[in-house]
Parts: sequence; structure tokens; C-alpha cells
Amino acid sequence: MPKHEEMYKFDDQKFLLDGIKVYALRVPIEMIADKLAQKEYKNIILSGVGGTTAEMYAVCRIIEKYSDIPVYLLNAAEALAEKDRRITRNSLVLTASKSGDTPETVSLCWYAKKTGATIVSFVSMEHCPLAEASDYKIVSAEEGMENTYMRLYLFILRFLYRKGDFQNYERFADQMKSLHSDALRIKHAYDRVADANAEKYWQEPYQIWIGSDIVFGEMTLLTMCILEEMQWMRNRLVSSSEFFHGALELVEKDVMVTLVKGLGPCRALDERVEKFLQGRTQKLVIVDLEELKFTGIDEEFQYILSPIILSNVMAGRYCWNLEKHSGHDLSIRRYYRQFKY
Amino acid sequence: MPKHEEMYKFDDQKFLLDGIKVYALRVPIEMIADKLAQKEYKNIILSGVGGTTAEMYAVCRIIEKYSDIPVYLLNAAEALAEKDRRITRNSLVLTASKSGDTPETVSLCWYAKKTGATIVSFVSMEHCPLAEASDYKIVSAEEGMENTYMRLYLFILRFLYRKGDFQNYERFADQMKSLHSDALRIKHAYDRVADANAEKYWQEPYQIWIGSDIVFGEMTLLTMCILEEMQWMRNRLVSSSEFFHGALELVEKDVMVTLVKGLGPCRALDERVEKFLQGRTQKLVIVDLEELKFTGIDEEFQYILSPIILSNVMAGRYCWNLEKHSGHDLSIRRYYRQFKY
Repeated sequence: MPKHEEMYKFDDQKFLLDGIKVYALRVPIEMIADKLAQKEYKNIILSGVGGTTAEMYAVCRIIEKYSDIPVYLLNAAEALAEKDRRITRNSLVLTASKSGDTPETVSLCWYAKKTGATIVSFVSMEHCPLAEASDYKIVSAEEGMENTYMRLYLFILRFLYRKGDFQNYERFADQMKSLHSDALRIKHAYDRVADANAEKYWQEPYQIWIGSDIVFGEMTLLTMCILEEMQWMRNRLVSSSEFFHGALELVEKDVMVTLVKGLGPCRALDERVEKFLQGRTQKLVIVDLEELKFTGIDEEFQYILSPIILSNVMAGRYCWNLEKHSGHDLSIRRYYRQFKY
Repeated sequence: MPKHEEMYKFDDQKFLLDGIKVYALRVPIEMIADKLAQKEYKNIILSGVGGTTAEMYAVCRIIEKYSDIPVYLLNAAEALAEKDRRITRNSLVLTASKSGDTPETVSLCWYAKKTGATIVSFVSMEHCPLAEASDYKIVSAEEGMENTYMRLYLFILRFLYRKGDFQNYERFADQMKSLHSDALRIKHAYDRVADANAEKYWQEPYQIWIGSDIVFGEMTLLTMCILEEMQWMRNRLVSSSEFFHGALELVEKDVMVTLVKGLGPCRALDERVEKFLQGRTQKLVIVDLEELKFTGIDEEFQYILSPIILSNVMAGRYCWNLEKHSGHDLSIRRYYRQFKY
């Protein structure tokens, strides 16, 4: 690999090494998926709060696309309060928590366990409250959304493969091996754009973010968990399909808009928004996933990988460059987990 | 009824008369619901764009609460782009469009028709593109969300009753007869609060709106269709359950927050947010649905009616008072439906 310029707060070698560690989980993840796929489920429940519901959104869309099993993405706090009747002994429940102790998620898990549901959790350590409440755990401490998605995807696509719904799993999983080196190359290429945009826009008083389809969860993560929680930046996220019912009226010449042009069938909806935006704001950032795809991976898989493609350059680079220019460390919160509430 | 003070841009007699007209649809609506309930469906699809998806949210939550039939609330543009596999000849599709010609909804309807799905549309005129594309139409020109919800509720609850899932339908439907006079009394009582709040806050540069559960769709309608589209007011809507992952960091002493305290099992989540907000913002509006309930209706139905309870005072009064103070007519758009996009 050619020598790259150093990127702000980024360690190339650690990123590649993390990729190897996560890919090494392929076999244990497949073993769990294979075992679970032997049973028939009435539905699949994806649950968590905050970043977890955001990342599970892509998993939800994948199941909807390839399978006939009903799938529901539930906020853990609401599902628990309502004793959601869809959680039964015939449910497969997937949950996750980075800290391993998110109270809403852990409580929902215990509730689901009592109903007799089968529970798989993605956690970052062997022993934590969420792991204790689960039937199966997939443990991996590697941070970064590339790693989060890789674990989730290997699991769910293997599961669907065993159900006869995703024929090309082996080729997909083989190609995931090159994901990190591919991602790193793209990160380096995009970092200058990310840096320039961050410098230009970090002081915006209000931003609109627009996108559609399978990347919408990742966009929730970007706007909620990063812009709001970590940078205290006011923004409005809206889907390309709902944009024309409300949010469009907020667009003015000096309102900053970030539009993500995705891959797949809803790209036309993003393009419709793009056409509208041209000339209506002078502060438009377009993130076109067509230009940021992974070259080592077959075209047919790029759509389902698009949350990773987006995360690779945005959560992976743009947000760090925002920190660099704003001087507001991504780890500083005034409220979140600072005290009980 | 005692003589009331006149409310800004509101006609008491027309409101009551509209209520009578909508309630007169009870029998024809029940006939359609009864006929449709004879068939078994694999799922129920609720679809539309903008305000329609917002109002269908409550219907979705009601079906989830009372029935085991899988239900999905789909944005029509995305569902059509993806040829959503959940739409099949075994689907019951419910759609709506005030104008009757919303292109995304009409196109989805034709697509659903081709799959063989059964389609029911709520429209405001006998002949319109959406009506042409549907198998059954429920026609009613009466505007106002009270009327919209009443039609939807009579249909879906009658349907669930026939499926054995909502035993007390007859009592519910009988009590709906008093809804408008009850609603009118509460409107008058709340109008002074709405007026004072609107005067105080119509110039806010940014607002946060928080709520949970069955009223969240109505809150989408308030913030997206009214604040954004009709008043060009910047705001951020977040659920009580997701508030603690992102949006909380945006709360400052001078940031205006509207918190809706709902009825039912998720009220505890709203109260948790309320406790957090106390002292953290000096601009807090609390809309407590406990204090705005319909007195002529049994307690057990108040939860499912809560979107109407909320709409009655907010879309019904607060938003009109916003117009009064901002001087920005609710009917003025700069973009929406002003030209092709």
C-alpha cells in the first residue's frame, strides 16, 4: 500500500488490525447463525435505543428485502413499556449495546427472555448485563461503524442464506475480507473533501440532512449521535421521500443542506431532491455513494453495504474533521451519561 | 351549550355540523369494514406520504396493540421504488390523500392493485385519481384532524371488532357521537393558553418537540406539516425514548421545548423527560393530555383517542394562534405544490 498522509485522530494500522480481528469472528458468528436458522420464527425483533436502533435500521431493511419473515425495529423503552405483543417465544430478538449496560435494552432483554424468545446480543465484552440477559452473544470490542456493520451483516446474511433467502452469502463473506483496506483507501481520498467541508460549515446554526432507504439509519446516527450529542449542532434529518412535505419550506439560500445520494431503487428520490435544491441553497454538500463504493466488492452487494460506504467517510472522517475545526472534542457531553436521569 | 367567546378563524357551528356529517358515515364505513373483515389477510399495509403517513401512525399503533396481523406503515414513494415485497394479493392496503391526487400514493395504489391487494382509500371527493385506483373508497370532505381520525378509527376498530380483536366497538362508536361537542368545549377552554403560548413563542429560532407512543404521528404532523410547511419554523421532533441519545445535548436555558405528556404505558417515558427538562430550559410548554381528555368518553378509550385529544388543542388551536401572531397565513407556501418538482 502506498504511504498515506496522516489523518487527524486516525491510526491506519489500528484500523486494519481491527478489521482482521472482526473478520476473524466470521466462523463463530456463522456457527451461531447456522444453529439459529434451524428453528422457525414467527418474526424477528430488532431492538435497542439510540445508536443501536440507528444501526439496526439497515439490518431491518435487509431482512425486508430478502425475506418474508416479518421484522420489526423497536425502541426498547417503548416496547418494554407496552409489553409489545409481537415479542413471543417464536421471536428471534437481536439487540446490541456498546456499553453493555444500556438500561432500556437490558430490561427489554429480560422481558423477552421471560416470553421465551431467542435472544442474540452484540456486545463489546464477554461479561456485561446485556450478555447475561441473552441466549447468544457476539463479543467484539472493535469500535467504528465499519466493524459494527460487519458483525451484524455476517450474522444476518448467513442466517438468511441458511433460510434460502440470500444465495450468494459465501462470495459476499469472502469479499468482506478486503473491506477495511478498501475503506482505508477511500477514507484517505475523501479526507481532504471532508476537511474542507468541515472547515466551511462547522459553525452553521442549523442544517438539513436528507437521504433515503437503507442509509437512513446511519444518517440518524450521524445527525443524532454525532452532530447533536457530540457536537451540539442543530439539525433536521428528513427522508428524500418526506422532504417535500414540510422540510422543503425551510430551505433558504444560506441554509446548509447535506444530501446523501444513495445506491439502489430509491436513488431517484434523492436525485429529485437534488434537482430541487440546486440554486435554492448556496451551502449544499452532496455525498454521492456512487463515487465512494468499495472497489473490491461486487456491484450486487454495494447496495446493502451502502450504510458502511456512508459511514466510512462521514462518521469515519467528516465528523472527526468537524471536531478538529470546532475544537469541541467528540467525547465531551454535558448531559449524556453524566448523571442519572 | 353556553355562549362562547369567538375563536380566531374558527366557526363553532361549522365544526359541530362537520362532526354530524362525519358521524353519519358510521354505517357506510361499518359496511365496508364488515365486508373486508370476512377475508383473511397476511398483513395490513398503511401507506401515503407526508400528513397521511403521520395520521396513519396512530392506526398502525392501534393494530399493533389489538391484533396479531402484521402491520406496516410505508412511505408510498419508497415502497413503490422498492416494489416492497410485503404488498401482495393477501394484503389489505389503506391509503389516503386529501387532494386525491398525491402522485406517490396514487402510483403505489396502482402498483398494489396489480399485485391483487385489496385497497381502501380515504378521500375527500367521489371522483379523484386515488379513488379510481382503489377497490373501496370512504369519501368525506370535512377537514380537520378530528374528522380524519374519526373516519380512520371507525373503520379500523370496526374491522378489528369483526376479527374478534376489539370487543367494545359498539360502545366506542356510540360514544364518538359526542366527540365534537366535547372537543369544542375543550378547545374553548384551552384557547387562552394556546394564544398566550403562541404569542410568547412564535419567534423562536429553533424548537424541540418531544413525545411518545401513539401521539408521535400527530406530532410529526404538527412539526412537519404545520410548523415547517405552513409557518417555516425550525424544529426538531424526537421521541421521549430517543431523546436521551442526542437531542438532550441541544437543550439550553433559552431553547424552547414542547413536551407532550401522553396517556397509556409510555407516559412514564414522557415524565422522565419532564424531570430532566425542569430547570434546564426556561421556555418549556407542557401539553398534558390527562388534562385535555374527552369527558363524554370512557377511560378505556382515551388512550387510543389521544392523537385526537392532542390535535384538538394543537392543530386545532395552537397552530391557528401561531398564525395570528406571526402574521404568516397557514395557507402560504413558497414551494409546496407551487410548481413541479
